[in-house]
Amino acid sequence: MEQFDTYIDAHQERFLDELFTLLRVPSVAAQKRGIAETATLVQQRFERLGASTRLIDTKGGSPVVYATIGNGPRTLLIYDHYDVQPAEPLELWDSSAFEPAIRDGKIYARGVADNKGNLMLRIQAVEAWLATLGGLPLRVAFVVEGEEEISSPSLPAFCRDNAELLRVDGCLWETGGRNIDDRPVVSCGAKGIQYVELVARGAAYDLHSSNATIVPNPAWRLTWALATLKAPDGRVLIPGFYDHVRPPSAADMQALESIPDNDDELLANYGIPQFLDGLRGVERLRRHLFTPTCTICGLVSGYTGEGSKTVLPSEARAKIDFRLAPDMEPATVLRQLRDHLDAQGYADIAIIDLGGEHPARSDLNSALVRATVTSAEATYGMPAILYPTMAGTGPMYPLCQALGTPVTSGAGCGYHGTQVHAPNENVRLADYWLAMRWMGRLIQEFARA
Amino acid sequence: MEQFDTYIDAHQERFLDELFTLLRVPSVAAQKRGIAETATLVQQRFERLGASTRLIDTKGGSPVVYATIGNGPRTLLIYDHYDVQPAEPLELWDSSAFEPAIRDGKIYARGVADNKGNLMLRIQAVEAWLATLGGLPLRVAFVVEGEEEISSPSLPAFCRDNAELLRVDGCLWETGGRNIDDRPVVSCGAKGIQYVELVARGAAYDLHSSNATIVPNPAWRLTWALATLKAPDGRVLIPGFYDHVRPPSAADMQALESIPDNDDELLANYGIPQFLDGLRGVERLRRHLFTPTCTICGLVSGYTGEGSKTVLPSEARAKIDFRLAPDMEPATVLRQLRDHLDAQGYADIAIIDLGGEHPARSDLNSALVRATVTSAEATYGMPAILYPTMAGTGPMYPLCQALGTPVTSGAGCGYHGTQVHAPNENVRLADYWLAMRWMGRLIQEFARA
Repeated sequence: MEQFDTYIDAHQERFLDELFTLLRVPSVAAQKRGIAETATLVQQRFERLGASTRLIDTKGGSPVVYATIGNGPRTLLIYDHYDVQPAEPLELWDSSAFEPAIRDGKIYARGVADNKGNLMLRIQAVEAWLATLGGLPLRVAFVVEGEEEISSPSLPAFCRDNAELLRVDGCLWETGGRNIDDRPVVSCGAKGIQYVELVARGAAYDLHSSNATIVPNPAWRLTWALATLKAPDGRVLIPGFYDHVRPPSAADMQALESIPDNDDELLANYGIPQFLDGLRGVERLRRHLFTPTCTICGLVSGYTGEGSKTVLPSEARAKIDFRLAPDMEPATVLRQLRDHLDAQGYADIAIIDLGGEHPARSDLNSALVRATVTSAEATYGMPAILYPTMAGTGPMYPLCQALGTPVTSGAGCGYHGTQVHAPNENVRLADYWLAMRWMGRLIQEFARA
Repeated sequence: MEQFDTYIDAHQERFLDELFTLLRVPSVAAQKRGIAETATLVQQRFERLGASTRLIDTKGGSPVVYATIGNGPRTLLIYDHYDVQPAEPLELWDSSAFEPAIRDGKIYARGVADNKGNLMLRIQAVEAWLATLGGLPLRVAFVVEGEEEISSPSLPAFCRDNAELLRVDGCLWETGGRNIDDRPVVSCGAKGIQYVELVARGAAYDLHSSNATIVPNPAWRLTWALATLKAPDGRVLIPGFYDHVRPPSAADMQALESIPDNDDELLANYGIPQFLDGLRGVERLRRHLFTPTCTICGLVSGYTGEGSKTVLPSEARAKIDFRLAPDMEPATVLRQLRDHLDAQGYADIAIIDLGGEHPARSDLNSALVRATVTSAEATYGMPAILYPTMAGTGPMYPLCQALGTPVTSGAGCGYHGTQVHAPNENVRLADYWLAMRWMGRLIQEFARA
């Protein structure tokens, strides 16, 4: 792979230019911005690679960019997304979220880690292969969607309508990178999600707060309703919520046991004295990877500016995500939430369904996972850490699990300080080039596995 | 008073110009905007009136505009303020908050009702008197402060340092107007307030929400802490909170009984099906005027934009005002709140003190109240309604009660649809001119009472 690596080194400037062009478009799915423009940019990049490309309409959703290149007995599907999280709160960014900046060996921009960096470095790895090693030893197919950050609402139908494109031997997931000890990480599953917005309403308009004696306050109603969802000890109080949670298997627990302890580094990085309930080590990992959550992601009501304003709000809103462990179902959680609020006397609080996804798991011993682990060690000179599953979420169920396709994460440029979904999202330049090398070696290993 | 009324009619255009000039300056004390400019505008208006004026420094706070004019055995103090509430949320205004607009016989602008309208019409009433009736039959002194909307933090010290300016025979309060049946309203007291902001903190920065398994969520901690402050039945749960509440006297209850029932009009105006606990009539009034509150005025945490963002917030904030009934003390409530949060396990939640004021009451039978009631009937041709006290708050304690000065509200242009503190704050043009006539008649009545 020496020529492959040399090619990467020699083309760093153009490779970064291509990445920056992609990062400059604010493709925020939640805000319906920059979607068509970004899909076209991605398709054009695949065309320059020499791939066959299609922009596949999703009936009102963001288009999927599909591209395929190479031939061989096996097909590797690569799943990425070109949409990004909202950049707010903008004032907490040290440089503009959509104008990439390099500082201290890191690239700062919304989406550089999640997921435009991985998308671009994987394309560039294929270019480097073709330029230095000849034809690909397998067929590579890319599915690049534009709604991952809003729970991929169009992808289940896309998968049903385009099943022939998804008959593959393995799927490389969008995520990948190194942990807080800089060891490469491989994982084989994802949590599901159900995202909702709760809306409580009071008077027709904001009133002078002196009226709080006699006029209902939706901020209080929302607060009380939220307090019925989850107890201060962290337990979700919605009846039936934990009924379908599948506990980790013996193999899962064995994988957890082999993950090095990095609790203290994580605590320092997050700036907190301890994890919830003082969890550490395997118990922390087990809680993190195998239990569902109920998380307030956003709260807003009344006056939120500087100083005081004596107002009785007319509306209060909470955004909540439930991360779902296998084998929970998003629709079930949505129904349980409605039933619970009704039973607690909060039938007046509206629930807006902002998307759901099933959890998914994959075999820890598939040929793809073995190839990903081997290629990671070949790249970084140290063994990969195998996580049985991720705490994060993606459309792994319709794309992989429903079709029996093995899946792995890896060949990505993430690291522990990457601040995914937060201000100052960044990747390290060195990781970007290393992940590209990893991608080349993964192609090599999976082709011959 | 015929010439007086005619003068008003003849000068409407200039009078509105003067009001609009004042409304155009965004003198938002909470945001420290436009304060010095507005104080100067007000002082210049008093100088055009021929008053002796002073701009009195308050040691870091907004200056107080003091003006005095006329001679006579009695002195009437008029208390107004030139600061306004924040205009946010700006998107809910039908026209710009700081560019006054006339539509359907109403003037729309932040502060037109609270309190720039009353300030200006009272000055203009004095001008009309001087122009048509000769010298004033009493001395009028104005105290116009610039921090009323942030709980008048500088006024207690101002009152101590300038006690000689406050030796007066009665004080006309800033508020005044007509109720939902268009009857003039007079009241003789104000609630106190303690305004706080609660701040809960979690990780050093916003994290990907998948970390909610193991990293504390300040939005949840704030929610749980808030739920300990007040029960869903409306009762404040802070120990000792109700200990010093003075119940209404027999005279207070008699006044309440004489207030006409306008429950249904209020419910329709607020757009709610019923008041809290289904209260109506005298019981609603008693709750409204004589009980303290604990009100969430604002909530903010994490992502509050469109759609979904899967974020674990690093901070959550709640703005809360406590309206205090006589004889509660703001400092006591602040201490009780801290003790309660500590006892409930929320010592980590910070309390920012955003200002407190004592409640105040005044004699329902003072010469000033009688003059205000008589002059209201002379102006509007119908009896005034006497409220024993207001549900709102102001610095009535240091300015009046501490000095034994009788106080009354009245001679103001408010009405039931005025949307004080809310978007589309407005007054009716007709009320503006009528309140000016009321002010003239109040001078006449109080001078001879």
